[in-house]
Formats: sequence, C-alpha cells, structure tokens
Amino acid sequence: MHGLMMNQPLLISSQLEFAARFHSSVEVVTRTVEGPIVRTTWGHVAARVKKLANALVAAGIKEGDRVATLAWNTQRHLEVYFAVSSIGAVLHTINPRLPPEQLAFIVNHAGDAMLCFDTTFLPLAKHLASVPTPIKHWVALTDDAHLPTESGIPNLRSYEALLSGMAETFTWPVLDENAASSLCYTSGTVGLPKGVLYSHRSTVLHSYAIAMVDALAISGQDVTLPVVPMFHVNAWGVPYAAAMVGSKLVLPGPALDGKSLLDLIEAEGVNSALGVPTVWLGLLAAAKAAGKKMSTLKKVTIGGSACPPSMITAFQEEHGARVLHAWGMTELSPLGTACVLMPKHASMTAEQKLAVQLKQGRPIFGVDLRLVDDSGAVLPHDGKTSGHLQTKGSWVASEYFNLKDQSQHKDGWFFTGDIATIDGDGYMQITDRSKDVIKSGGEWVSSIDVEHAAMLHPQVAQAAAIGIPHERWVERPLLVVVKQKDATVTAAQLKEFLEAKLVKWWVPDAIEFVDALPIGPTGKILKRTLREKFAGYKL
Amino acid sequence: MHGLMMNQPLLISSQLEFAARFHSSVEVVTRTVEGPIVRTTWGHVAARVKKLANALVAAGIKEGDRVATLAWNTQRHLEVYFAVSSIGAVLHTINPRLPPEQLAFIVNHAGDAMLCFDTTFLPLAKHLASVPTPIKHWVALTDDAHLPTESGIPNLRSYEALLSGMAETFTWPVLDENAASSLCYTSGTVGLPKGVLYSHRSTVLHSYAIAMVDALAISGQDVTLPVVPMFHVNAWGVPYAAAMVGSKLVLPGPALDGKSLLDLIEAEGVNSALGVPTVWLGLLAAAKAAGKKMSTLKKVTIGGSACPPSMITAFQEEHGARVLHAWGMTELSPLGTACVLMPKHASMTAEQKLAVQLKQGRPIFGVDLRLVDDSGAVLPHDGKTSGHLQTKGSWVASEYFNLKDQSQHKDGWFFTGDIATIDGDGYMQITDRSKDVIKSGGEWVSSIDVEHAAMLHPQVAQAAAIGIPHERWVERPLLVVVKQKDATVTAAQLKEFLEAKLVKWWVPDAIEFVDALPIGPTGKILKRTLREKFAGYKL
Repeated sequence: MHGLMMNQPLLISSQLEFAARFHSSVEVVTRTVEGPIVRTTWGHVAARVKKLANALVAAGIKEGDRVATLAWNTQRHLEVYFAVSSIGAVLHTINPRLPPEQLAFIVNHAGDAMLCFDTTFLPLAKHLASVPTPIKHWVALTDDAHLPTESGIPNLRSYEALLSGMAETFTWPVLDENAASSLCYTSGTVGLPKGVLYSHRSTVLHSYAIAMVDALAISGQDVTLPVVPMFHVNAWGVPYAAAMVGSKLVLPGPALDGKSLLDLIEAEGVNSALGVPTVWLGLLAAAKAAGKKMSTLKKVTIGGSACPPSMITAFQEEHGARVLHAWGMTELSPLGTACVLMPKHASMTAEQKLAVQLKQGRPIFGVDLRLVDDSGAVLPHDGKTSGHLQTKGSWVASEYFNLKDQSQHKDGWFFTGDIATIDGDGYMQITDRSKDVIKSGGEWVSSIDVEHAAMLHPQVAQAAAIGIPHERWVERPLLVVVKQKDATVTAAQLKEFLEAKLVKWWVPDAIEFVDALPIGPTGKILKRTLREKFAGYKL
Repeated sequence: MHGLMMNQPLLISSQLEFAARFHSSVEVVTRTVEGPIVRTTWGHVAARVKKLANALVAAGIKEGDRVATLAWNTQRHLEVYFAVSSIGAVLHTINPRLPPEQLAFIVNHAGDAMLCFDTTFLPLAKHLASVPTPIKHWVALTDDAHLPTESGIPNLRSYEALLSGMAETFTWPVLDENAASSLCYTSGTVGLPKGVLYSHRSTVLHSYAIAMVDALAISGQDVTLPVVPMFHVNAWGVPYAAAMVGSKLVLPGPALDGKSLLDLIEAEGVNSALGVPTVWLGLLAAAKAAGKKMSTLKKVTIGGSACPPSMITAFQEEHGARVLHAWGMTELSPLGTACVLMPKHASMTAEQKLAVQLKQGRPIFGVDLRLVDDSGAVLPHDGKTSGHLQTKGSWVASEYFNLKDQSQHKDGWFFTGDIATIDGDGYMQITDRSKDVIKSGGEWVSSIDVEHAAMLHPQVAQAAAIGIPHERWVERPLLVVVKQKDATVTAAQLKEFLEAKLVKWWVPDAIEFVDALPIGPTGKILKRTLREKFAGYKL
C-alpha cells in the first residue's frame, strides 16, 4: 500500500523557484573579477537564471549535455549553477588549480559542450582552445567591455551579451529526480582525476542535511560567506542550501587573501564563513596584523583537511567565533560528518571540549560510516581502534563516471582511503590517509597528530610528517616544517617540544626545515611529492 | 542521463538504525502511565523495537496492515511508532479525545488489525471491543502486573508479555520509500474525520525539514520535550527527527498539567519544548504560582492554534525562552511554516519583533503556499491581501484515505480552509478559518485578531469571536469570554479596552461571559458549537 502524499521530484529548479517566491529581497553580494563589489538579490538572480536558461537552450544545450565552468565564487557562477542543472543539463565545475594536461583530460572525459570561464583563467581557456576538445561554445563570465580581445578562442562571447535580450520567464522541465545534475572530478593527487556525477535527488537531500542544526546549519538568519570554492565539490553545497533557506550570500570572487576576506566580513556583516584551513591561516594573520577582532563572525566551518587545534583556539578565543569542524569528500557531495558537542559535554573544561572539537564529528543522517581492517572485517566503535573508513548514503557516489576501475566501490560501501577511529557516540576522527600512514613496528603513527602537535609550537607555520624506510621499524616519521617568519627554533628544540606532547614512539626521528610545502589543487599538502623529495633520506 | 549516486530508499527504519549506531547512549525519559519516571536510551529503545517487530510478525501483522494506538507520549508508544512502520505495516495513531462513535468509525474505516492502548484508555478500548471492528489483537501498553483484569476484551495481552522472549535482532525489509508508513485522521470538527496516509518518503523528508535551523531546529544538542501528543499528527514529527539527530527525548506521559510539566522541565534540563497554546497556559500559570523562572528552557515551539501575544511575551520576558511560532495541519505531516526572524529584523524594537513573531512564519522548503480569492484567482503576497490559503509539497497529502469527496484537493493544490495573508518575505499570517470568518459589510473581520486583542486584558483568560447575523452588515462580531479567576471586568470596560486596540468596525457589538469554552479533540476552540449555543442571539 502506497502513502497518499504529493510525490514531487526533488529538483534543483525548485530551490531556485523557492528563493524567488519567498526570499526574493535577500541579498547576494559579490566581489567581482572586474574589481567592484556588486550587490543584487535572490529575486534578481532568479530572473537572470531564467535568461541564461533561455540562452542555453538557444545555443542548443540539451538535457544531459555537460556545461563546464572555470570560475570563482561569483553571482554569475551562481547563475550558471542553477540554470544548467535546472534545464536538465549537467554542470561540470572544473578546478583551475589542476595541471593543464589534467584540465584537457577531464574536459574530454566529461565531453563538455560549453565552457564558461572567468577572465582570470583566460590562459587556461586558451590552452583548452589549442588542443582537441568537444567544446563548441566559449563564454567569458564578464560583459562586452571586459571581453578579452584577440584571445584566439573561436566565437568567444561575453556572458552578459549571451543573456542580453533573453526572456526572464522559463518553464522548468519536470525532470526525473535521479537525473544527473552536476559533475566534479577528484583532485587526482594519485593518478588521473575521477568524475563524481551528482543527481538532483542527492543534491536536494544533501541541501536539507547541511541546513540541519547539527550539520552545517546553513540558515536564513545568517550572512554566509562560502570561501570554499564553487569550482570544487559545489562549494560544499552552500549555493543550493542558501537558495533553499534564503541566506544572504557573500561571494569573495578571486580575492581569497586574508586582508580581502577580512574587509568583506566586516563590511557585509558576515556571521558564518566556510573554508579550508589554509584560507583561515591567511585570514587570522590579516586580523592579527590589523589588530582587529572580527566582530560579526559567529561561526567558522572548517573542512577539507584536519583542522589544527591552534586554529580552533584562535577563532574561539580571539574572535569569539565558534569553530565547526566538518569532514567530507568529493564522493560525498561532500558532507559526511560535522563536529557539534552533545549536552553531556557542557560540563567539560575548555581543553576537554577542544579534544572533542578536533574530531571530524558525527555522521549526518543519510550517511553511514564503518571501520574495517585490512581483511575487510568490521571493527568496533570504541574511539581507539583505527581502521579503513567506509561510507554509504543518499549523497555518496555509487561509482565513478565512465571509469573502468571501480574498486573503491564494493558491497554497497565506498572506500574513502582514510584511516579513522569512531567512538561510542559516533564521533569520527581521521588519523591518516591510508597512503600516508606511517607504519612503525607493526603499529600506525598518525601523521596528522604529529603535525598538529608541531603546529602548537608558536614558531611553526606548517608541518608534514612522512614515513622514511627504517631497517628495524619498517618506517619512522620525518617531520618537514615551514617556520613562521623570523622564527629561531631549532630541530632539537622542536623535538623536545614534541616529546612533551606525543607518546614516545610517535616523536619524529628527524626534523627538516623547508621554505614551503607542496600544495595540491584543493589546498592539501601533497605528501607523495614530499616523499619523492625525501626519497633516500637517512634518519 | 542518471546521476551515479547511491539511491537508497528513505525509510523510517533507517532513522532507528542510525540512532542505534550513533546515538545509542542518548537518553529517552518517560513519565509513565503507571506513575514512575523511567529512564532508558535510544540504544535500548532500538533493541526493544526489534523485539516488538518480531512480536508483530509472530502475531501475523504483514506489510500494509494497520496497527492502531490509543496512547500518550511514552517510550512504549515510541517503540510502537518505529516497529510498526519499519516492518512495513501502517501506524494508525488515534486521538482519544474523539467522541466514542467517531473512534469506532475510524477503526473500521482504517481497517485496524491490532490496537495498542494505554490503560488510561481502557474505557475506550472496552467500547471498541463491544462494537463490530476488524481488530484481532488487543495489547495494553503495560506489564502483566498492571494488566487490567476482567476487562472483557478478548485475549488482551500486556505489551511487556508480548515482547518477552523475542529476539533483539531483526532485518528490516527494504521497502519502497513511497509505501504507507502511518495514518492519522483529522479532528473532524466538521463532519466525519478524514484519514491522511503518510509515506516513508514524506516522513523522512519532513524529518530533515524540521531539523533545519529555520524550521523547528530539532537537534542532538537539545533536551526535547514534545508535549504535542504522539496520538495526533506524529507529535509534529518529533519522534522521527529526534531519532535522526540523537536528541534526548523527555516524554510527559499522561501528566499534561502545568505543575507536572514544570517539574519535568526542571528535573530533566529540558531546553526545547513543543505544544499547543492551551498546554502552555497551564505551564505558565504553574510557574507563576510557584514563583519560578524556568531556568533551562531556551525555546518553546507553539502551534496548533494561533499563539496569543501575551504568551510570547510571558515566555520571552519572564522565562528567557524564545518562542517559535509554527503552523501546520494533519494534511501537512504537519509542518508548513515556522516564524524565525531575518537578519533585517535585528534592529527592530521589541514591539515590532513581536508583530513579526505573531505571524505563522515562512514556508519551509518542500512546502509551497499561495493565496486565491473565491474565484480561484491567485492573489499577491503583499502582507495585506487576505485569501484562501492553498499549499502543495513533498509532505502534503495528495488525497484523503478511502474518501469519495476529494474536493479539498484540486489542480495539485490542497485547500487548507484557512484565510491568510503572505507578505513579500513569505511570512504567512492566518486571519481566520474560512468557516469562522466574520463577514461584516462585505469585509472580513479577523476573529483571531479580535481574540488576541481581548487576551491582552489582564483579566481575560480565553476569548472567542463569532459572527452573529445582522440585518444591515450581514454579520457582526460577538465576543465570548472566559474571565481569569476573581476577575471583576465588565463587558463595558472590556469593550472600551478593545476600542483602543482595534479598528472601529472590528470591535465586537456585544460581549458575553461564560465559565468555559467548548474545546475540540486537538485543543482548538469549537466555534461551531459556540455558534449553535448563541444561535438566535440578539445584538
């Protein structure tokens, strides 16, 4: 027997229509690629989305066609997000930080029919125009006044010219909710990038999930600044959820330096900001340099990499902004867990609370987690046993797009490639990537814990621990450190500092100082490059 | 082209499993029908749900079968909720406040195969056992020690005896997410009650929705007290959402008087409570009598009837608990709107904020609203124009269960029977039920506004405005008032008070004092009964 409820498909177009009907006066503010700050509203955005939808259809874009973007977080990118998926085409956001040869690979692998790019990325677009690709339409996300001349790109049009004269009405097709809505490739730090093909259903369910109190708590009561890029994993789903709940959106465009973010936060009254740790290092440094407390900021969501404890302390104690530590992956749309405290933690000391906040958090309903050992046996959730983290759920990829090797998907579970623990309350903590784990004498050293301990030293800016082959212990940790400006700390002093913070056998055997660490396209430290650099290193 | 995401059905069993896996130590506390307060955990509840599932299957309950309950908010009722729906049967919650002849009607209309009842409702169960019904299994929600003897009910078993010896493991069937999960009948103040048949999909989507920050914000960070009964409209969905987010649940059992609620709130550290206005009148009076400020309470969600301004002020100013005004209906699972303020309201005066809070609020994504006039033409959202409120959405009934007259469902919209306004930000305000509206000289007098104005008088306990036929104006308002204890206010004094608060033509022509107002089974004032009582009244 079926229920007797209206069964409307879960569609991205419904989120946009809802914003237009009930949140039309709420602002969308962009620091543009051209420079000025541009203010508009969800109502105006929705009208322009319909103009774009008409333009896409006029250009011959059909259901299932892929439309690629190489773009910052801007109003125009937001419009492309909603228009492409809502007409039934597939939004393919490309990470401009990928190496050029990988760009060409994924454009061909995805079969992109159109590319919309910010003028910042003109060199990348030119490169793509110089190699064989299926791209038929080239659109620069600007107006005619700023359209690059003599780019050599065939039939290059400005976005504003494309929209010009188009009608502001469009009847959205009633799509199958399982239709593909968007496509994002993993960062491909090992091998070629792999494509994750999201659906309307997974996107809408993920939107509900991240708007929950215990998840990212995206709210119409907030002024939200997604620093997390719209060119990777849907900016953690913020554009969709913001439309749904009517949040004021502040989009930082290309200016992701600390000073620019600080100015934007203060000027727009941002109270909720989301991004990866590297971005927040810059913001905190800028605030310190300016001697400013961020007065409006109430919540900072940190994901992408494990959040160092020093960062949580800085936001919470110096700026009065609560840190929400979250974990996700491209294959999870991306949200998997969020770290909120339970009522029973209320009586804890600040230090004890910090220890909880350092965990990646508890799964959001819709996502299940488990740990397995090397043989695939399920491990207990005791907060101590670490194992390979697997997940399944409503917004978890079932397979990669058009890929032969689907070995990460097995028996209905996705192998994340992370090593983690889960405690009795469901708090998950990642201790390593399985490929980065340091195996010492049959035990695992958590490279993340070693790095976080090092970053507690006031003269350490960044740190990365890698395993170096060792005759007796198989591997032993080497810590590679970037010092703060004008720092004087020596390797011996830092080792002594670590001896007071870590169990003895986790203390690195050696410490090397470098000027910079290799960073991948999504802001993560490239440990593989580091291991190559230190190949043959003698402890 | 379909997305490549895991497409798992949205099922109520998944919420329970999630609670068992990740929130197992979170408490569920019940004031039992037997008297004592009983403490357990979600983990223990989940284990007992599986025992009950085995017992139901052993009793021959199959997918699609209806299992009825006549029960308070208790742990056992919670277990019945999850077990019945999770095995694929349909949970039919019956409102014990319905007249006995309507009880028998709906048990037959629903085709209930089993009835689980609290011993409080033994007389109702006896009545049902004395008339023809399809009920084959009778279960008293108690243990053998408290099982009524010589009830005359055939094969009556206690719930604990039913569970005894059953296994704590059960493999939930993978149901179609559109399968019926539960059934609730409207209160039937006009005509016979009508059945709304919810699905697993609608229930899970509604759970996500109510856990959103801008909706009911059900959270694992809260200690939640649903005073709103589980015997009507799923206690606003709180049991499902609480399992999903891991909220501590405090269930008040049969003791809904102010004093009992006050004690429970203080003893269990309740910070979030949900219920109808009449319940809160009792709680506020009890707190006043005890001279107590409710120290833990942070949020009171008020729905079911329009919330009088005096109640909002009392909670917010005397107890420091924010009031969330919400609106829903049986046909909406029930949540339609919730009234949270927008950032732009931050600079308002307390009085201006109160005026916003008195509105029923903005629609939650998943529910759409519109206003139409008598001819069906769509009306503007200007905050002034009032019209018939229509709705559609993911958790809105598409039709009534097994009913010939489906005239409330038309062109994909459900006719709520409410008269409302909607402003430019989507804030909806109900001004009347369409059948209660007072038509004076071609204009509508909002009976709700008249009543709320009267309740601002310190000597008025309750008030109801009804239309009395009038030769010149078609109808004019009569105000029927229940005075506070020891009140001395006269009709003339009250009229003078109202003249200062209302536009002239809304001021009632007459005021009558009564000892009590007729209250329907869901706590609403029965205006029809009142109109019958005052039939022939001369203004």
